Formats: sequence, C-alpha cells, structure tokens
Amino acid sequence: MDLDLVRELAQEADTKIVLFVMDGLGGLPHPETGRTELETAYTPHLDMLARESACGFTVPVGTGITPGSGPGHLALFGYDPLVYNIGRGVLEAVGIDFDLQPSDVAARGNFCTVDASGRIIDRRAGRISTEESTRLVEGLRNIRVDGVQAFVEPVREHRFVFVLRGDGLSDAVADTDPQKEGAEPLPAGAISPAGQATAALVAKWVEEARRYLADKAPANMALLRGFARLPSWPAMPDVFKLRPAAVAHYPMYRGLAKLVGMEALAVEPALDDSIATLQENWGRFDFFFVHYKYTDTAGEDGDFDRKVAKFAEADTAIKSLIELEPDVLMIAGDHSTPATMAAHSWHPVPFILRSKNIRADECGMFSETELQRGSLGTFPAMEALPLAMAHAGRFKKYGA
Amino acid sequence: MDLDLVRELAQEADTKIVLFVMDGLGGLPHPETGRTELETAYTPHLDMLARESACGFTVPVGTGITPGSGPGHLALFGYDPLVYNIGRGVLEAVGIDFDLQPSDVAARGNFCTVDASGRIIDRRAGRISTEESTRLVEGLRNIRVDGVQAFVEPVREHRFVFVLRGDGLSDAVADTDPQKEGAEPLPAGAISPAGQATAALVAKWVEEARRYLADKAPANMALLRGFARLPSWPAMPDVFKLRPAAVAHYPMYRGLAKLVGMEALAVEPALDDSIATLQENWGRFDFFFVHYKYTDTAGEDGDFDRKVAKFAEADTAIKSLIELEPDVLMIAGDHSTPATMAAHSWHPVPFILRSKNIRADECGMFSETELQRGSLGTFPAMEALPLAMAHAGRFKKYGA
Repeated sequence: MDLDLVRELAQEADTKIVLFVMDGLGGLPHPETGRTELETAYTPHLDMLARESACGFTVPVGTGITPGSGPGHLALFGYDPLVYNIGRGVLEAVGIDFDLQPSDVAARGNFCTVDASGRIIDRRAGRISTEESTRLVEGLRNIRVDGVQAFVEPVREHRFVFVLRGDGLSDAVADTDPQKEGAEPLPAGAISPAGQATAALVAKWVEEARRYLADKAPANMALLRGFARLPSWPAMPDVFKLRPAAVAHYPMYRGLAKLVGMEALAVEPALDDSIATLQENWGRFDFFFVHYKYTDTAGEDGDFDRKVAKFAEADTAIKSLIELEPDVLMIAGDHSTPATMAAHSWHPVPFILRSKNIRADECGMFSETELQRGSLGTFPAMEALPLAMAHAGRFKKYGA
Repeated sequence: MDLDLVRELAQEADTKIVLFVMDGLGGLPHPETGRTELETAYTPHLDMLARESACGFTVPVGTGITPGSGPGHLALFGYDPLVYNIGRGVLEAVGIDFDLQPSDVAARGNFCTVDASGRIIDRRAGRISTEESTRLVEGLRNIRVDGVQAFVEPVREHRFVFVLRGDGLSDAVADTDPQKEGAEPLPAGAISPAGQATAALVAKWVEEARRYLADKAPANMALLRGFARLPSWPAMPDVFKLRPAAVAHYPMYRGLAKLVGMEALAVEPALDDSIATLQENWGRFDFFFVHYKYTDTAGEDGDFDRKVAKFAEADTAIKSLIELEPDVLMIAGDHSTPATMAAHSWHPVPFILRSKNIRADECGMFSETELQRGSLGTFPAMEALPLAMAHAGRFKKYGA
C-alpha cells in the first residue's frame, strides 16, 4: 500500500501489534522424507496458533524474486522494497550505531585472503575473529585521504564499515568486491560521471589498505561494496502512527529497523533475552518487531536438521508471545531459505495473523502444505502490516 | 482495470449482466457457533448457485482497508475507488435527484441536538421523522446568503442536502460536523486559501441556521460535512458500452449509480418490488445493478440473527434472478459488515459469478469458508465487472 494512503488512514489506538520474524522461514521438502523443515520440526505452539489464525503466504518482493535481508524486512515493515531501496553500506553503518551524516558515503567492507598473484582465495579471510578484525581496523584508521575524513569501524568477524565524510562526495562508486573467489579485487570506478572524484579517493584508500594488509594474511586484502548514502524515508511513527520497537540482535536488522524510525532495543543473542526485552518494554511501545536469526543461518549452511531444531527452539517463545496478549500477532519470514538450496530463495513465505476478528481457516498446523488452505492466500508481504493495522483498529474507514 | 483499456476492449453484444449487491455481505463467526451469518442462514438458492459458479472473494479497496459505501460500490462498477473519489455532499445530492450543476458546492447536512453550552448530545437529533425534517428544511430555505443561492433539500429522517450555487465557489471547506458527540460543532473554515470566501458564506449560513433552530429541539442545530463538487467521470455507457440501470431504493446508491452514468429506476423498498422492476425493464437495458440494503443495516446494528434472516429473505429473490436467464449473474457485496463488529470491515467479500463458460469449482455452499475453495481466489473488486464483460462476450481480444 502506498505510504501516503497509509498516512491518510492510520489512527492511534490503544492496541499492540507483534511481528515475530523467523529469518529464512520457508523451506522445501527433504528428498528422503518429502517433508519441509517446518513439517519436520516439533512446533506445538506454532501449530496451535495456526489453527486460530488467518493463514497464507507472503511474497517479499515479487514473483520469482529472491530477496536480500533488506528488501525482505522492509516489505514486512510496510515499505515497498522496489521503491525503498537501500545500499548495503548504509545498512551496516546504521546497524552498528555509527552516526552516519546525510552527506556521508558508506560501504560494507570485507577482509579477504588473496594469493601471491592477487587473486581472491577466501572472500571472508577464514572468518577471522572480531578481535583480530578490530586490530586490523585500528591500522586502517591511519590511512589519510586528501580533504575528506575516512572512518573504518569493525562489525563482526571479517566485516567492517567504511565511511567517507566531506564535501561533494558521491555514492556512484562501483564495488571493489567481485563477490566471487578466483577473481582479483575490482578497481574502484565511477558508476556515473558524478562519482569520479569519490572513486579516485576510494581507489587511493584501497591501495594504501593493500599495502598495510600485505603481511597480515589471512586478512591480507580488503573488499568494499554497496557504496550508499543515508536515505530520507518516511518514518513509521509518522506514517503508521505507531510507537515501534525492534528486538533484534544482529546489526543489519537493527539498522533496517532504525531506518524506518523504530527504536532498536538492546538485546543479547539468545531468544530468551529477546522475550525478556519484549516483556520489559511492553508498556513503552505498540509495535514490536522481534527478529530470530538462526533459522536462516542453518538454512544458508544447508543444515536441514539444525534448521528443524531452530524451529523447535523458536516454538518455545511462542507461548510467551501469546501470554503478552497482543491485539495482533503475526508470525512471518523475510524470505525462504530452504536448507536443500543452502541459500535465500524466491518461494512465498509462510505467514499467519492472529487477532479477535478473523475468519476460521482450515489450517491444521504451521507448515507450507497446510497454510495453502489459508484464507489470506499468497499476497505481497508489504500488505501484512496494513492488514495488522486494520485488525488493531488503527485504520479509519476509507470514503463515505 | 484502467478504464482506457476497458474502453479499448469493450464491444456491444446481445447479452445481459446482473450484479446483485447484498450490502455488507461478508461476516465473521458467531462466538458460540463458530459459523458466520451466511453459514447460519438458510439460503438454498444461493448455495445451489455457488455450486454452479466461479467463486472467490473481492477486496473492495485494498488489503486492510474498510470501505465506505461509495468506494465499495464504485469498485463493483469497475471504477478504481482510489482514483474515483467522491464527496459525501455530491453523493447525497445526486441521490435525491437534485439537479446539481458543475459549479455547485454540495454538503451533507444533519439535524442534531446541542445542550445549553452548545455541545452536541445527539448527532442525529433523535432521528426525527422525515416530515418534521422537511418542515425545518422549509424554514432554513428562508436564509439568504450574499450573492449566491442556497438550496436546502430534505433527504430522510435527520438528513438533508445543502447546496450553494453561484460564481467562484470552492469545495475547499472543512466539515462543521465533528462526527462525535460531546464536542461543539466546528467552525466552517477553509481547507486551502481557495476556500476562504466560500467558507465565510457557509459560516454565515450556519450562524443563521443556529438562530432559526434554537427553539426547535431536539433538532436545535445543523451540521455540515463532505463539501464537494460534481465530478466529471467517464460514463459506463461510453466506457463499457453497456446500457446500465440501477434498481436501488436508497438515495446514496441511486446517486452513485447515476454518477457513473446508470439510469436509476424508480423502486419501492421491498425486494419484491426490485425484482418486479427488474422484470419490467428487462428489455430496456443490458446491465442491472440490484441493491439489497438490509443485510448491511442488520450488521451495522450488531444484530446477528436479523442479518441471518435478511440473507434468507434475499435468497428468495435468487430464483427470480435465475429465471430471467441473464448471461452473467454476479452475487457480490460492497464490503463486509460482520454483526460481531457492528460496523463495516476490511474483510474480503464473498463473490460468485455464473455464466455458461465457467470452470467447475468445489464450493458446496455460499459461505465464507466454502468460497475459499473457489477458483477466483481473493481479487480486487474492480476486476469483477471486466470479468463479467468477458463472460458476456463484451470484450474483444487484446492484440493479434
């Protein structure tokens, strides 16, 4: 739904909405059993919830489109991911609470390993520890670039954020990360004429980084991608008239949430801590985005059994979510990550919505097969929050 | 579908389409029985029809959007309700056959009751009789406004239409009706600078109305809302190449029908009279919109049992509709009005279409649960008429 229309319809109400996102939720059948990860997992609370909910599938971006985490989440926040596009650099910077300024240009950095000929042999430098990465970042901070400030911030393991601050910078700079092994890092080139000056500054920084890292194997080179500036987007409190909070541990999801105007609450990695944080902050907000990462990680690793186990773990949190008595509870995913594919996929994502004003569906459990009987059908993920708004009494009538 | 595309595809044919609208059609389960109004009602003809039809649900405006009667009907007439937006004043004026001119500004009026301090204690003045309202309207007609004509026309019970006619009038005037009790009537202000002169005229009229009505309790004040001008919309005969007729008793629905170029036939309140009117005029038109209001009224009153009874009543008319042998028969609703909510809602609306060229569905009866098996799925209401046009042989092939 167009955000201008949302703004016109949204009204305040004394109701609460919870969006529980299981990252990479949807799956595919195991070749031996014919059952998906969800269908294999023991999830009594999710199954009970499905029987009391309106059920269906979300399409994160469009038919056949495999979304990254950014578009997948933005859609669930009600933002059209084809309109609200965001650079990876900005996502990473905001996610670590870096105070990005509107004129800054940010990129996502990777430490990597190159061989003697300069070819990349490991794009993640053997996933070096965050401590080691932080030491290397300290060294990179000594690199000076003419007339602008260069910030380098550690993120986690081999990841860092690179930010240039100064006058007249552009984000029209091409990735130096070829995103494949066996290739050499790409030169920092301009995507358009406006990016030439900035690309030259980046190229100079990369050259100095190469020199500094040369003897630091396995992290003997750095790659940059996703040059971007901070977008200026409508904020959820303004558009949806919600007080929104994010209960998410991973930087990128916190960053996404903050970009749409959510407050990102401090939270530890364990799901128990997410639930405790939710309970402690229940009175302060009326929309909660709760993020559970580990289903996706297991899927991306191609680990069917671990994904099954992670669903069982997530299921234990459902009881606590229900006990908070939200007016609307949604269980959703940002995209599918079938373990059999070991990657994000385009498959529609299981979705259920529970509130007091729902029609009875005939879904016996929370699974890809059963949800096909759901009344919501297969619908754009960006319509999930408008639907929740209606169920929470937060949309006015349209027209006389 | 875009009306320009409809215009390109539409062709004349010797076929007839009937759209039977049960206002507020969709419902929600009764908390005790788990069955909706439709599932509780004895509707053998509707059930038989469902077994011979293509079945599904319409979304009147958009996911999560609760439509007013205007947008809900415009969508069923094939007009995108987000594009074809209409002010309440115009709707009411056209509905009582007032000869609204393009430069007129119309508003919906309510007689109301205010207390000694001027606060509204009953927005509908105890629903005074149409006779009493008509007498008060006579008095209001004596109010003179500088340089323009002011028309006041009774509608029904506490409702009236207020029209200003003259040069340079604007509809950018704010409602004086706060739409809640306990508040004072609002001043007639301008929504934009263009509305200032007109707002001043309205304010003067309201002041004189207040003086005239002061001793006429319970109707001791008047409220105005929905200032609007006649829109200039494409007409159904031109766009759809149909000769369309409306069989509707309530002014607002007649008004809506006329705005899209239908001829509004004279009809009594009883459904029998609607059927008789349809039969009498069968040869003169090829599209008939038949409106049945009482399902919505019962739903809005929160009267589950009465809504059930009204479905049973409507069902008796289905036999007569079938006997007319229309090429396409659609049973639809402008929106859902669940009795458990006592209000319009955003829930998708049951829909069936019967013609000779349909695929077999597996819907055993006309109900919210059974129609979920339908082949039409959940689709935008504005696509219903294009679908009917196809079934009626009234759409040309697109492209070579």
